Amino acid sequence: MTVRATAHLTDDERLDWLRLIRSQNVGPRTFHALIHHYGQARDALAALPQLARRGGASAPGRICTRAEAEREMAAASAAGVTFVSLREPDYPLRLAMIDDAPPLIAVRGELATLAQPTVAIVGARNASAAGIKFAERLARELGEAGLVVASGLARGIDAAAHRGSLTTGTVAAIAGGHNSIYPPEHAALADAIAENGVMLSEMPLDHEPRARDFPRRNRLISGLAAGVVVIEAAQRSGSLITARMALEQGREVFAVPGSPLDPRCEGSNNLLKQGAAPVTEAADVTAALRPIFERTLQLSAQEPDRPITPSEPREPKRPSEPSDDERARLVTLLGPTPVGIDDLIRLSGLSPAIVRTVLLELELAGKLGRHGGGLVSLV
Amino acid sequence: MTVRATAHLTDDERLDWLRLIRSQNVGPRTFHALIHHYGQARDALAALPQLARRGGASAPGRICTRAEAEREMAAASAAGVTFVSLREPDYPLRLAMIDDAPPLIAVRGELATLAQPTVAIVGARNASAAGIKFAERLARELGEAGLVVASGLARGIDAAAHRGSLTTGTVAAIAGGHNSIYPPEHAALADAIAENGVMLSEMPLDHEPRARDFPRRNRLISGLAAGVVVIEAAQRSGSLITARMALEQGREVFAVPGSPLDPRCEGSNNLLKQGAAPVTEAADVTAALRPIFERTLQLSAQEPDRPITPSEPREPKRPSEPSDDERARLVTLLGPTPVGIDDLIRLSGLSPAIVRTVLLELELAGKLGRHGGGLVSLV
Repeated sequence: MTVRATAHLTDDERLDWLRLIRSQNVGPRTFHALIHHYGQARDALAALPQLARRGGASAPGRICTRAEAEREMAAASAAGVTFVSLREPDYPLRLAMIDDAPPLIAVRGELATLAQPTVAIVGARNASAAGIKFAERLARELGEAGLVVASGLARGIDAAAHRGSLTTGTVAAIAGGHNSIYPPEHAALADAIAENGVMLSEMPLDHEPRARDFPRRNRLISGLAAGVVVIEAAQRSGSLITARMALEQGREVFAVPGSPLDPRCEGSNNLLKQGAAPVTEAADVTAALRPIFERTLQLSAQEPDRPITPSEPREPKRPSEPSDDERARLVTLLGPTPVGIDDLIRLSGLSPAIVRTVLLELELAGKLGRHGGGLVSLV
Repeated sequence: MTVRATAHLTDDERLDWLRLIRSQNVGPRTFHALIHHYGQARDALAALPQLARRGGASAPGRICTRAEAEREMAAASAAGVTFVSLREPDYPLRLAMIDDAPPLIAVRGELATLAQPTVAIVGARNASAAGIKFAERLARELGEAGLVVASGLARGIDAAAHRGSLTTGTVAAIAGGHNSIYPPEHAALADAIAENGVMLSEMPLDHEPRARDFPRRNRLISGLAAGVVVIEAAQRSGSLITARMALEQGREVFAVPGSPLDPRCEGSNNLLKQGAAPVTEAADVTAALRPIFERTLQLSAQEPDRPITPSEPREPKRPSEPSDDERARLVTLLGPTPVGIDDLIRLSGLSPAIVRTVLLELELAGKLGRHGGGLVSLV
């Protein structure tokens, strides 16, 4: 998302955005593609059934009703949770720049926290006493250095990172909804975080996190931050997923060295072998990130004001209407192996607009998977 | 030392070499400069008094007598210790290539060990149980991979590295003489090392190691090896000196990651920050060193046979005779700050041969310090 806006959505627009992102087969990437095509969430909602039918859906995906969206809004409000859209100034600048930024984030706490320079700290749930102590100390020192600390509210390192930065500012990106804090014993910690920082979720309020929600959530932790510090990560652990996403998002990756005899440090030590920067004190992180934060400030200052309000949209691009032949040609090129959209355009000989429309149709029919780096596959 | 010879010294020549290196103000670099000038140790010995006088010595430095050298030879022989000169095939190839290679090494054990691909393992004397366990395991695995392990016979990591590689081959480079093993409780370990590996010293047999002998000895540990693995090194520790010498000698430097909360790992973790390769298993070391060992083998195979026997020397270069004026000009340029010999030649306008001769005279008068990288200073 390169367009940065300063306007607010109207209540109606916010409802439409919520309906669209809560509708079946609409993830963040599809959402952005739809808005790109239709300009307005309302128009995209109206087009969903037809698009899905063209994509070959036997039954159209379920569309979130206005009443459902209104109920979610009301429940959120009652829980002290507000929705911030990608187009609004409270949306975190860095998170807005990732491919699959959530169109709406549900946040509870001090929203100003989201505008601060942020670093993430993640690590093992079954961390050692030394790891927990170090995480808490590092978070405190990074907080004292003026950085907000993002993490995932998990047991072990995550919780220690939040605790260490409670008074200076911390953000917890969670995999479930705000009314379904996981692990349950961290409910009090979540409240404490919201006092001085932010609890952040892209899920419906009562959503209970499933296993697959955690890797998805990890992109938010790295997306919020300019860099990710990994402490005590085992092989094949969630922290390594966060590190991988950080790399894909162009974030700095740091790892805290640990004993080669401790399996909890195997993943973090491997990150060191792959070139992650070693961290033994806060200065290792701040020295590496300072120039990045300074560059960001300059960019923000230089950027011309381009308020793009959804209520006064640019001339919306109506989707080109692909022919059956064009649709068939593209489907033939697709398979279970992810391929680049650029390659599809080149190999099909179709216009980019047509290719994107067919992909959108397939996606809304639940037949397309989108992957990082502009790759798609049939599912 | 780029010249590699395959001949043996005669007994007389070996005595002359021993006398020369045991004479006052003659270190390895001075020794090499003298041999460069005089071709023969015997001629250098004869020239020492005059050179020292010209350098301004109030009294000539003490020259090791033939009787003293004979007594040292006999005592060494009785202790199972033999002297190997830099010109002989048993001298370790890599050690021969460092600037300040000892002209003679006193060795006890299986000399064939010195011809094997070698890696050094060094670290804290007050190592943790985990560090000792890891050092022993790493040494064993590197031994199984066909590498000889060099270390310094110290308490902690060094001893563990020797123990782990006792059966596969290990070399202990010690700071004292063979009859003055330090620490004393490692006398049995030293005997065990000599069973299957080598005990190595450049000092007189009964020399008790002083504090300053340990850093000097460390150059031998790194010099013997293609790479140095540092385990649990505190800041300002001897292991970091070995790492620095390894870098100066163009060796690979490896460091084992450790907890940032353990001061014993501060130095090794800092090495990681400075670019040392992280090691958590033997494969990290062997993968990095294998191409280096292969290159060495090829180089050895390609090198033409150039036996340069001290008994049939090249036409020895007689030292140019500097005038008093030339001597004064050079001394004026020297001070306590180390300067490059190249700079001295340029700034003095004197010939390289004259400059080197004046420096030699000053050194033998105890007035010159030689530093790494061809730097010299007045002392």
